[in-house]
Amino acid sequence: MVFRKKFDQIVNKRNSLLCIGLDPDLEKIPGHLLRKKDPIFEFNKEIIDATYDLVCAYKPNIAFYEAYGLDGLSQLKKTIEYLKSNYPEIPIVLDAKRGDIGNTSVMYAKAMFEFWDVDATTVNPLGGFESIEPFLKYQGRGIIVWCRSSNPTAPEFQDLRINKNSLYIIIAKKIREWSKTYDNCFMFVGATWPDQLREIRKIVPKMFILVPGIGPQQGNLEKTVINGITKNKSGLMINSSRGIIYASNGNNFAEIAREKAQRLRNEINKYR
Amino acid sequence: MVFRKKFDQIVNKRNSLLCIGLDPDLEKIPGHLLRKKDPIFEFNKEIIDATYDLVCAYKPNIAFYEAYGLDGLSQLKKTIEYLKSNYPEIPIVLDAKRGDIGNTSVMYAKAMFEFWDVDATTVNPLGGFESIEPFLKYQGRGIIVWCRSSNPTAPEFQDLRINKNSLYIIIAKKIREWSKTYDNCFMFVGATWPDQLREIRKIVPKMFILVPGIGPQQGNLEKTVINGITKNKSGLMINSSRGIIYASNGNNFAEIAREKAQRLRNEINKYR
Repeated sequence: MVFRKKFDQIVNKRNSLLCIGLDPDLEKIPGHLLRKKDPIFEFNKEIIDATYDLVCAYKPNIAFYEAYGLDGLSQLKKTIEYLKSNYPEIPIVLDAKRGDIGNTSVMYAKAMFEFWDVDATTVNPLGGFESIEPFLKYQGRGIIVWCRSSNPTAPEFQDLRINKNSLYIIIAKKIREWSKTYDNCFMFVGATWPDQLREIRKIVPKMFILVPGIGPQQGNLEKTVINGITKNKSGLMINSSRGIIYASNGNNFAEIAREKAQRLRNEINKYR
Repeated sequence: MVFRKKFDQIVNKRNSLLCIGLDPDLEKIPGHLLRKKDPIFEFNKEIIDATYDLVCAYKPNIAFYEAYGLDGLSQLKKTIEYLKSNYPEIPIVLDAKRGDIGNTSVMYAKAMFEFWDVDATTVNPLGGFESIEPFLKYQGRGIIVWCRSSNPTAPEFQDLRINKNSLYIIIAKKIREWSKTYDNCFMFVGATWPDQLREIRKIVPKMFILVPGIGPQQGNLEKTVINGITKNKSGLMINSSRGIIYASNGNNFAEIAREKAQRLRNEINKYR
């Protein structure tokens, strides 16, 4: 099913805009899992089984699997297959921020949508449209373009002023332009900058926006929801990773993750 | 050995600034290799064995391996191990253009320098210094930052004017600033834009610059060398991928690749 439609259906079904980031770190996951053959997969599986009815998506960031080499990536594959078999209604966003010249982006897009075969991925627009188009050509898959990131040094380039606009505003307008040709073109904007999110929402009133940066990055949740939500109370996928999955490293980590997820989903809904 | 030193030594030893891009594409590699167990590795191996004495580096672009999933990545690992065992004096640049918020870049850097364990990698600076620093902390490894790319839509964002400078000039100046703290900070600039390369060389007179875009992307070789070379006739790594490795898809593809590589190395030296 088309990513955007799958997202709308699950938002309604679960009454949730919460996405959980599956970013495994062997130094943080509970010790008893480390003795298992596939500790990363086992960790993800328990988190998923404990939270599947609270989320509108899962977002593994591929960096956290690449760090463990082929073994880590094979556990990402198992995680994706487990989600597809058991929870096919939940969209999977593979956060990878790829982007290169055209013929190379063709290969990255093939990796994302043919090998990993996920519903959506994130991309980096620095190379311009040619870097993004090979992804967009996979109709129905979601292409979530880096517009404004959530990290402390994001302003270094993203806030540079070009005439009267910041670079991220120029990027937002380009994404709007691209989305007229490709209806699967979306964007992400960090929650640590809710004022920017408001500006961007004015540019793309109905577009799907992924918002990372809730939790340890201290994005303001209330402002994020108020500034980012569309008129029909949707169009926003709010991601939390560390704040949920590492809330506890005890044997009951999945249960605690569920509590955290439930609280965050409800808090988001309070401001919707 | 430190990347920069390894590069300088091989440039002197081989009298070459030529880097060959190992970008395998199963639709382009010779048919007889497809019947082998690891066609990508076998292809790379033959190219390497036929050209090792002509190059200053090999640059696999990871996208071309990711496209074939875990099997492709395992053949990349074999290629890297083959190079290290047989040609340890040749630097390996893993072209991956990674970049994300700080704690995610930590994981990407771990992947590049602990799992893949290569001499250098390329990174994307859109997230600012925080995205790059986790890579730079691997002292001695080369971090090659995207400054100006070689593709047709590069100008879309990279040439935007900020006061009197284009964005890529601002990026070049930032890279120069970062390189004062981290002497392993370098950059790449596409050969399709030799005038930009001249401007950038003025900003960083001695810095190592990787230059892709020679060959099918039609960068002007003479201008590239003249505009990019340092005073001591070095500091430039000129990459060609498709123009060499796919010069023939017959049984003698490696021999033809050697001829192409030899011609290109000599032509570069003519302008040095």
